[in-house]
Amino acid sequence: MNLITHSRRGDPLFSRGQKGGRPLKHKSSQFIFKYLEFGQIEVLTAAFMMRFCLQEMDASPCNFPVSHENPSVCLFVFVCVCVCVCVPRLYLRYNHWIPKVLLLFFIVVDLSLAIFEEPAVFLLPVACTMLVELLCLLVFALRLTHYAKVIPRDKFWKDPKNICIIVTLALTLVDMIVYGALDAAGCYAVRWSRVLRPLLLVNVTEGRQLRRAFRSIRNALPQIFYVFMLFMFSLLIFSLMALKLLGKRGLKTIDGAPYFTNYLEIVLDLYVLVTTANSPDVMMPAYNSSFVFAVFFILYILINTYIFMSVFLAVVYNNYKKYLKEEVRQLVRTKRHKMARAFAVLQEPKAAGGEPVVSQANWNQIVRLVQPGISNAHRELLWSVGDDDNQGCVGKLAFVQLADLLNIEVITLKSRPHPLQSAFPAFYLSAPSRLVCRLVQHRAFVVAYDLIILVNAVFIGLDEENPLIANSEWAFLALYLLEILLKLYVFEPRSFFSRHNFWNCYSSSKIISTRFDTIIVVSALIATIVNSALTSSGNYTSRQILDIVFILRVLRLIRVVDNIQRFRAIINTLIRIGPAILTFGQLIIVVYYIFAMVGMELFKGKVKFYEEDSSDPAKAYCGNELLRGTAFAQLNYCKNNFNNVVSSYILLVELTVVNQWHVLSSGFAAVTHASARLFFILFHIMVVIVIINIFVAFVLEAFFVEYSVDKSDLQTSLERKIEELQLAVEQEKLEDNLVNAMETADNEQGTGQSANKPPLMFKIASKRYRTVDALLQRMFEADLDPEDFAENDDGDDGGNFANPAFSSA
Amino acid sequence: MNLITHSRRGDPLFSRGQKGGRPLKHKSSQFIFKYLEFGQIEVLTAAFMMRFCLQEMDASPCNFPVSHENPSVCLFVFVCVCVCVCVPRLYLRYNHWIPKVLLLFFIVVDLSLAIFEEPAVFLLPVACTMLVELLCLLVFALRLTHYAKVIPRDKFWKDPKNICIIVTLALTLVDMIVYGALDAAGCYAVRWSRVLRPLLLVNVTEGRQLRRAFRSIRNALPQIFYVFMLFMFSLLIFSLMALKLLGKRGLKTIDGAPYFTNYLEIVLDLYVLVTTANSPDVMMPAYNSSFVFAVFFILYILINTYIFMSVFLAVVYNNYKKYLKEEVRQLVRTKRHKMARAFAVLQEPKAAGGEPVVSQANWNQIVRLVQPGISNAHRELLWSVGDDDNQGCVGKLAFVQLADLLNIEVITLKSRPHPLQSAFPAFYLSAPSRLVCRLVQHRAFVVAYDLIILVNAVFIGLDEENPLIANSEWAFLALYLLEILLKLYVFEPRSFFSRHNFWNCYSSSKIISTRFDTIIVVSALIATIVNSALTSSGNYTSRQILDIVFILRVLRLIRVVDNIQRFRAIINTLIRIGPAILTFGQLIIVVYYIFAMVGMELFKGKVKFYEEDSSDPAKAYCGNELLRGTAFAQLNYCKNNFNNVVSSYILLVELTVVNQWHVLSSGFAAVTHASARLFFILFHIMVVIVIINIFVAFVLEAFFVEYSVDKSDLQTSLERKIEELQLAVEQEKLEDNLVNAMETADNEQGTGQSANKPPLMFKIASKRYRTVDALLQRMFEADLDPEDFAENDDGDDGGNFANPAFSSA
Repeated sequence: MNLITHSRRGDPLFSRGQKGGRPLKHKSSQFIFKYLEFGQIEVLTAAFMMRFCLQEMDASPCNFPVSHENPSVCLFVFVCVCVCVCVPRLYLRYNHWIPKVLLLFFIVVDLSLAIFEEPAVFLLPVACTMLVELLCLLVFALRLTHYAKVIPRDKFWKDPKNICIIVTLALTLVDMIVYGALDAAGCYAVRWSRVLRPLLLVNVTEGRQLRRAFRSIRNALPQIFYVFMLFMFSLLIFSLMALKLLGKRGLKTIDGAPYFTNYLEIVLDLYVLVTTANSPDVMMPAYNSSFVFAVFFILYILINTYIFMSVFLAVVYNNYKKYLKEEVRQLVRTKRHKMARAFAVLQEPKAAGGEPVVSQANWNQIVRLVQPGISNAHRELLWSVGDDDNQGCVGKLAFVQLADLLNIEVITLKSRPHPLQSAFPAFYLSAPSRLVCRLVQHRAFVVAYDLIILVNAVFIGLDEENPLIANSEWAFLALYLLEILLKLYVFEPRSFFSRHNFWNCYSSSKIISTRFDTIIVVSALIATIVNSALTSSGNYTSRQILDIVFILRVLRLIRVVDNIQRFRAIINTLIRIGPAILTFGQLIIVVYYIFAMVGMELFKGKVKFYEEDSSDPAKAYCGNELLRGTAFAQLNYCKNNFNNVVSSYILLVELTVVNQWHVLSSGFAAVTHASARLFFILFHIMVVIVIINIFVAFVLEAFFVEYSVDKSDLQTSLERKIEELQLAVEQEKLEDNLVNAMETADNEQGTGQSANKPPLMFKIASKRYRTVDALLQRMFEADLDPEDFAENDDGDDGGNFANPAFSSA
Repeated sequence: MNLITHSRRGDPLFSRGQKGGRPLKHKSSQFIFKYLEFGQIEVLTAAFMMRFCLQEMDASPCNFPVSHENPSVCLFVFVCVCVCVCVPRLYLRYNHWIPKVLLLFFIVVDLSLAIFEEPAVFLLPVACTMLVELLCLLVFALRLTHYAKVIPRDKFWKDPKNICIIVTLALTLVDMIVYGALDAAGCYAVRWSRVLRPLLLVNVTEGRQLRRAFRSIRNALPQIFYVFMLFMFSLLIFSLMALKLLGKRGLKTIDGAPYFTNYLEIVLDLYVLVTTANSPDVMMPAYNSSFVFAVFFILYILINTYIFMSVFLAVVYNNYKKYLKEEVRQLVRTKRHKMARAFAVLQEPKAAGGEPVVSQANWNQIVRLVQPGISNAHRELLWSVGDDDNQGCVGKLAFVQLADLLNIEVITLKSRPHPLQSAFPAFYLSAPSRLVCRLVQHRAFVVAYDLIILVNAVFIGLDEENPLIANSEWAFLALYLLEILLKLYVFEPRSFFSRHNFWNCYSSSKIISTRFDTIIVVSALIATIVNSALTSSGNYTSRQILDIVFILRVLRLIRVVDNIQRFRAIINTLIRIGPAILTFGQLIIVVYYIFAMVGMELFKGKVKFYEEDSSDPAKAYCGNELLRGTAFAQLNYCKNNFNNVVSSYILLVELTVVNQWHVLSSGFAAVTHASARLFFILFHIMVVIVIINIFVAFVLEAFFVEYSVDKSDLQTSLERKIEELQLAVEQEKLEDNLVNAMETADNEQGTGQSANKPPLMFKIASKRYRTVDALLQRMFEADLDPEDFAENDDGDDGGNFANPAFSSA
């Protein structure tokens, strides 16, 4: 539900003067607009559907003009009206931000119960955690009931995610009762429903990106399965060959065990070899006996590691792209379909009996409704893009584009004079002050500070025990503060700190990341002062504060990268694909949670960790006799255990990184049973072969989109319009910095609103996307037909994109 | 130079009757055709250029009709004629297969000298290897001189590959003299020119694919460099943070050394962590102290291993695709341009004064010239594709397509009766014989043999000491032989063994891989018999023969995969991209060779390997005191050394696989100097980051092309024509097997040439490509404009695709 934009409470737009067009007369219309504010596109559709109902039919659903609309629209209107009448305030409440945040909060609480449950980081009594979980279940159940009341009954029961939540809740309840009973009776019981908890996160309405990721995986699974089967066949054949070739030669491994004599062990060893984790150790005994056997292993690695793993990536990538494309196509079709329906409601026949159009007044009203925060200038700009020929109305195609146009982030720059200039014009415009401004804007200023940063880096690297170096830190801090103050003096503070200046607004200007920089410098200053105060007050130095000081000092150095254009381009791309990577983060957390729960049940307490200074002899074998002499204990992996949820997560990360996973898995197999390895192999297949490949596929695809130079059609048409209207911020002007432009304006002694220097300037926020959906749409734009309106309600049958209500009525 | 197709010596086409059109009258024309046979397209162009010269101008290059051709064509013709006159037989000799094979042979000899040179696998005296190398140099020099005589002088000196060969030869000669002198004087000398040897392989005319791969790498390098710099910056920043956070805590590594106190060592450790080779060992001391530090390492791995490595892949992939596309575009443009020029020579004005065309007679003549082995039926099929409207002539577009049409492999199936049927019709068509045929063709036959194979697999897995199991091998061999004999009885032997039946001809038929299968079974039979003979003759069993027997037995099992359609599709794709993978194989061999030569100079003899049964105490530390107690010696990696070229190669493969490379590199650093690690890091950057990523990029791209269902336009037009002419082999017919079709024909009691069952049937060999170029063209076909003829000689200026002569005259 990334498209949701909340309008502020008490929308002032309805009270504002509405010039021209048919104003919204009915008092109830205001209520309905507010009631329906659940997403941009939905508002557009529903708003005009509603308006149509109210204006044309006086709220009686039976005498609407069937003649000039087709039956499906009538049906739609009918359902809308019914819903309006039946559930007046519930929907508003359902989409209010408070219940949403509360729901997410309770999901987080539910998931983090793992920290307090046996095996726990901080153990709480069972009764306590059970009570909290019960509370969570209650909240989820309430939320679901609320939802069920809001949307039509049949739609509710058709949606698999609701069923999934209900089943999860029921199973959890059953499990809690059974566990409580068994626990009370003193029997051994397993809280198996804990693995179901992440399903709640996946299935809430807000988890759309996560569900999409899961759907990609599910869709890719059959293809992956066939390749995996072939890979397994190859593995089994190679193992058979290895058994026949090497089993009878009486070779010994490095610890004297017979080498390659057991078929199952060979299969396992060769599976591990595919992940390269036991290379070259596994082949050393054979290689020591003859170099010909090395050829066997090299062939094996070539086929299974290089070729099969590339094929896995290719299959995952291909399927991922294919299904994502299909999903995005449906999403765009649905969106366009809805826009087309909204258009159908709003349309007025053109004078000359031509195509139907939407008047400017109506258009303005919608835009203000949909995006309440939009500036008048921005709105007028959008209108001039839609109404390219200045006809005072827009056609269907231009109207449908509106949703995409609103997704393009346009920065409105106001060339305001510096506040100091307004306050003390004589001083600020004096010769020394101007010289300072020129100096700060000069390239040498940037280079000088880059050099200071490099010197600082060397000083950080040196031993901070030396008092000279310890004190130099104050000098560097003073220099950084001076820089910020100078910049504040020279540049307009609001533009200096504005939201868009964070990292990547002006892709070629030098004033970027200033906010990030300022935060780091000020935090470092505070931390250093606190640290000094603590040190001087007593002899005590807080290790934590010192750590923070160190990290902040090092982070200051990052700024150097930012001054090199090539690097900035790469970093900007990485930052742009960041939100999408976060979706994968959620995915990983969900999958890890399931494996952590299972792992904790299987392996809790089997491996113990003793503190570094412990003198317990059991430390050498992690407190489990079975581990004596194993590689697991020798490598001191005792802390890699499933004894609580935090160490489980860290262990799972280590398993994802793959290296030494055979040591870890055989360690846990040693303390339980050989079949425990299955858990680790399953984890490897699920996470490394499937999820990591999907992650790589996504990064690849997103990078390719960023690399391809051609911009979206809409974006260029918007840019063209900006240029046409001479409102563009030119790149060179940005290079020279905004102040220069201001100075020119000042020199003309105008009011700052001279004819050829408009006070407002626009800039498209390079290639940043408001939402993940916009990025996805961009990724597959080339394959989408702009005329594809999905007039036949097919677009909605995609189902997965349907919003909770109305969308496919 | 994959496009080269050699015509047989003594081309019979010129003596054959040439019906219609203008026959080639001049005796000299035959000579010129032969003289120019150096590639399909070149033949087409040059043949007609020549013909034009000879027919229109009586070989006097000055009075050619300037009026009806533009000056550039005149120039071209002029150069051609000059070359014809000057170097009459040399070119023929240059492109003869014997010198080419000889050249490759000497390159292989030159490269494999490394086996016999110090440090050698089999040591030969220096004089001996030097003599052989001198011989090789002589051959290369001769070949180059030959080449220089064949092509125009200015072209020869402009071509960087010739310069490269000359420089290489000169440097090698200088090195040999210096080495010989120093060796004679008893001084220490290094044969440094050995690293130059692979350049010869790269720069010979035949190494085009290899040069292309190197060009892709070179082109991708700048982009990779920037990402690498950013990655290094991130590495250094993280290292600085690690030093500050962990250096002062007095932590100890597992062997008691101070942990993270030296900045350079931290950088190295974290670099190794990017390759995941020392995960999780490197973080265990910090993690044991507090789990917060694990978060630091996880963040590091996320950013540097997952994100940066994906970005490397993305950058490499993107650049690779971009430049390859550009190269292929130029290649296709050049090809089309040449075809258009050939058309310009051959064209005749159409009767009604329309577009110029080429008559069928001329067309036939070219096709037979260009592809002497083509069957008349196939040629007529191609003609009917070109001349779709049956006008007796083809236009320019259809003519230009010819080169691509000839690249589509069309299988001509002749429905011949079984030889036994011809010999003993009564017996072969009798009821029992027909029953056998039906049985063998039944699905159950395949399933039965699949079961036999599975049972065989179990028997192979069991202990072969058991006499029952040892004897069962004979039973299985008999069963497999029976299958082959039965199939031979049922199917026509020539189609059974035909070239196209190897693996992937009929993508959905069951009679595939029969040749592979037969070879394996017969070899297994022979090897088993030899083995039994040896065993029964003496008590001696040859281990090698037994190994071969085992491998052959296991290989027999592969056939099971082939019976499952899904698997076959994947395997076919893999086989199809095989030739391109071989190019990467060459690339790897070249890069390895250079690293092996350098490595052998740096590290030869530093690490010694002692046989398993040696009791030398030095065995524990690989014969080098410096290795005592290191992980290298403890893990028994003594055989991983640079003591000869074979073990160097195996070591380099291990380094490519990455795991434990830090142990190997620190081992070699211990026996020489810490800076030796640079060699290993350089290898990692070159091979793992660059080459392996390009390999993955290629596999991905090739797989996507194979996955995308749409066939090439030409291929479908050819298929449509085949269907139109009712000559298609229907899929169902193939499923029912060819014999059924034969039987039907027999039942009609015709001569086997009945009207509605044509004796010839065509099938396009699915998606197999004759050449790597054709695959590449297919990969980027969507972006090529079919009308793009590059009339302005720009296409040739691409340079890299230019053939040795004429092409860009």
